[in-house]
Amino acid sequence: MAKTNAGRFFEDYSVGDVLTHAVPRTVGAGERALYHALYPARHALYSSDTFAQACGIAASPLDDMIAFHTVFGKTVPDVSLNAVANLGYAEGRWLKPVWQGDTLTSQSEVIGVKQNSNGKSGVVYVRTTGRNQRDEAVLEYVRWVMVRKGDLDALAPETVVPDLNKVVPAGTLAIPDGLNFENYNFDLAGEPHRWGDYAVGEQIDHVDGVTMEEAEHMMATRLWQNTAKVHFDTSARPDGTRLIYGGHVISMARALSFNGLANAQMVVGLNAGAHANPCLAGDTVRAWSEVLDKAETSAPGVGAIRLRLVATKGGAPFQLRGEDGKYLPEVLLDLDYWALMPM
Amino acid sequence: MAKTNAGRFFEDYSVGDVLTHAVPRTVGAGERALYHALYPARHALYSSDTFAQACGIAASPLDDMIAFHTVFGKTVPDVSLNAVANLGYAEGRWLKPVWQGDTLTSQSEVIGVKQNSNGKSGVVYVRTTGRNQRDEAVLEYVRWVMVRKGDLDALAPETVVPDLNKVVPAGTLAIPDGLNFENYNFDLAGEPHRWGDYAVGEQIDHVDGVTMEEAEHMMATRLWQNTAKVHFDTSARPDGTRLIYGGHVISMARALSFNGLANAQMVVGLNAGAHANPCLAGDTVRAWSEVLDKAETSAPGVGAIRLRLVATKGGAPFQLRGEDGKYLPEVLLDLDYWALMPM
Amino acid sequence: MAKTNAGRFFEDYSVGDVLTHAVPRTVGAGERALYHALYPARHALYSSDTFAQACGIAASPLDDMIAFHTVFGKTVPDVSLNAVANLGYAEGRWLKPVWQGDTLTSQSEVIGVKQNSNGKSGVVYVRTTGRNQRDEAVLEYVRWVMVRKGDLDALAPETVVPDLNKVVPAGTLAIPDGLNFENYNFDLAGEPHRWGDYAVGEQIDHVDGVTMEEAEHMMATRLWQNTAKVHFDTSARPDGTRLIYGGHVISMARALSFNGLANAQMVVGLNAGAHANPCLAGDTVRAWSEVLDKAETSAPGVGAIRLRLVATKGGAPFQLRGEDGKYLPEVLLDLDYWALMPM
Repeated sequence: MAKTNAGRFFEDYSVGDVLTHAVPRTVGAGERALYHALYPARHALYSSDTFAQACGIAASPLDDMIAFHTVFGKTVPDVSLNAVANLGYAEGRWLKPVWQGDTLTSQSEVIGVKQNSNGKSGVVYVRTTGRNQRDEAVLEYVRWVMVRKGDLDALAPETVVPDLNKVVPAGTLAIPDGLNFENYNFDLAGEPHRWGDYAVGEQIDHVDGVTMEEAEHMMATRLWQNTAKVHFDTSARPDGTRLIYGGHVISMARALSFNGLANAQMVVGLNAGAHANPCLAGDTVRAWSEVLDKAETSAPGVGAIRLRLVATKGGAPFQLRGEDGKYLPEVLLDLDYWALMPM
Repeated sequence: MAKTNAGRFFEDYSVGDVLTHAVPRTVGAGERALYHALYPARHALYSSDTFAQACGIAASPLDDMIAFHTVFGKTVPDVSLNAVANLGYAEGRWLKPVWQGDTLTSQSEVIGVKQNSNGKSGVVYVRTTGRNQRDEAVLEYVRWVMVRKGDLDALAPETVVPDLNKVVPAGTLAIPDGLNFENYNFDLAGEPHRWGDYAVGEQIDHVDGVTMEEAEHMMATRLWQNTAKVHFDTSARPDGTRLIYGGHVISMARALSFNGLANAQMVVGLNAGAHANPCLAGDTVRAWSEVLDKAETSAPGVGAIRLRLVATKGGAPFQLRGEDGKYLPEVLLDLDYWALMPM
Repeated sequence: MAKTNAGRFFEDYSVGDVLTHAVPRTVGAGERALYHALYPARHALYSSDTFAQACGIAASPLDDMIAFHTVFGKTVPDVSLNAVANLGYAEGRWLKPVWQGDTLTSQSEVIGVKQNSNGKSGVVYVRTTGRNQRDEAVLEYVRWVMVRKGDLDALAPETVVPDLNKVVPAGTLAIPDGLNFENYNFDLAGEPHRWGDYAVGEQIDHVDGVTMEEAEHMMATRLWQNTAKVHFDTSARPDGTRLIYGGHVISMARALSFNGLANAQMVVGLNAGAHANPCLAGDTVRAWSEVLDKAETSAPGVGAIRLRLVATKGGAPFQLRGEDGKYLPEVLLDLDYWALMPM
């Protein structure tokens, strides 16, 4: 009877624990094509081997979000099966491109625990690292979730809240070996706007919208081997809806941002992120961005741009919070990330 | 006007006939990824090249069910286009792994015919063999279907009912060359339970559920080039529903069984199977298993486990038949198979 | 604010303009599998490496329609974002097979412009060429669309209407190097009918139907990086429906035509095409064909057959136009193409 995985509860996590997440995953041409079928992804470096090669890269890597979702998905059975809420992300860095044929594994270290005052749940902080078959780290990020207690009588652990950077320092961003945007082809990339054309504070409405479908979000979520019941089973939530995996919204918004940010080619840093409201099938997702910062890099012709990416299911662009300081009900996602762009 | 295939009728089959099924199929990275998008498949040997290699296999093979569905799909235009019902399976054995780039063909021999007493239909038994491009058999199984007569005046053939094993003898199961579970990594596989931890008679509720979607079952069924109209065309059935291909339910249930049977890695034998009731979009599929038998094998560290896998669309686990001996209306599938598991 | 692409208007096109369409695309095993998941595609040359090799080809190429959709999709942001209607196709020729790993780019030359008498829109004719990473042309075709004017005061350009062939002359069709149908295996191809078995004027009802799903047509359309809003966003059309990309109907009808035309293996010429009426999710698509012409080719055992392929969403087969000469409301597509078939 105890053969199935009931998931961990708050009292099962201790600072310093290292969780080896199950089921390594080899990704390749199929995941790549499915990504392009599920999202309107058009960033040229991830669409074309020849474009990537002209930028000094051996081939078109798998989308950075394939790396993220694959590494993230493996953590779900160990980290968020009994989670009440996914509270935040920080210190995310993409460290190496993921190539077709790579096998990804995922490991997390518990770096913080804090029981809630209600005694029924607590916040768990983990630093997750994705590695390829050469044991090279390809991605790392911190995530914190609220997890229910299984045994309400379990003693509260000593509170440890990690000291996390609000923003990944631009100087620590990993630039893929060989990346060179000096001969970047703006015609083939789809837009003429370069790093110098974007101003801090500038806002961009990405215009396009996509109406969500159950089959699509479930296929995406399964592809990353994310097992959370609420995404698949109409009986898992009281209202019979299937909650769309927050990462599906991230990928949709990132793909929509092509229209206006076609040259924000590679995602290299994740500073923060909030899934502000639930997304359901039938919602039409739109996106807008705001330029938060810019930085130079050591790679030839390559600049870094820090962007806020907001996904919505209605309402006007550029509206984020109400007078009460809370996210507006139509806001789905507020993501703060670094991308690389030709200078 | 006679250019289209009207399918064979009962009187068109004779014992000894060999049917070469059309459209060989090369399978690869795309079919592999789609399988993981359509089913919550997580068995590590089929998810990861490195895991497979640590088990003595050259790479992660395509899922055993991809082999089954591909070989099966080719038989539909010749065997079941005019079938009233798919009655049973027996003597199924997976003989070789299917690798990316393999081309599968399918051939069936008619091994039995029995006209029904109503004179309007009959049962046809075929033994189907799937082969790769090296002409190696990769899969064989017996299936019997009830087929309508096209000409009611056709004479009843001499009844031949093949003598079929109720269970594939464990000693005849084909173990992939080189398979070795002595250094099996249970952490990466996702569960600690080994062959010795399962007892005959033990029942496992796999807990998770997936609500079915039209787009998903149609994509799966097309991928295996299964052409049966009832799966695709709302005008093909009186009530306007599209019947979900029974193999879609098999794959869904097998994938769900990961939760509790993560180490039942490879499917090597199909003893019996019944599609007990129709499955439609909107149904939420769950699964439970029962350990029917266990056997040792000659491969290092590899045990065989015989499992009943039951898929349902509701009701409590472990309920199979009513007082009348018939399958309960919520039971979709009753499958009896052999899997390989680390000892 | 001007970072997003608003698309070109009628006055932005001049005869002689060359448009380099954005986002080259590497296609491979994933696109191939998705094509087989989205359409009931069974033509053996595109299903099996071994079948293709027996026909003198190095491997199974990607479906001709993958080439078409990929090349076409790239033109949408530059040609049809503000299009009112897609009016026609002509002079289409597939010039080289597309192989797994090929990277496709797309370029169009404006070859005609004609302002409408209402002064609000005009017709733009473009000749589009798709090339692979070796700069070899793989596909070319002419398309004309009606495009809105952005500035109603813009002067009407001099009218240029290109002189287009009604039919691609059979002698100019490109036959893939090495193609040889002398040892063609009709059993594996699925039907016995050869070139000599089809008569000009013959009509074939392809019998099967497929009911359309939102998730499927959107995945297909995204896979070809076609960005037209009306396919994805329920708020883009007044009635809240998502218009199915006409190319999805082409591929569906072509795949359905296997049943009766299994040996019309390769599509090599596009003579004409009309998207007669809109297709929406829930419609059940059927197809019928008419043999329009036949021609010999210089390749061993290879004949050319010119076919009308009609897709419908209801009604009886072989009905195309009403008494008023207009397409019947249930007709979706009227396509005139050349295919290669064993003699």
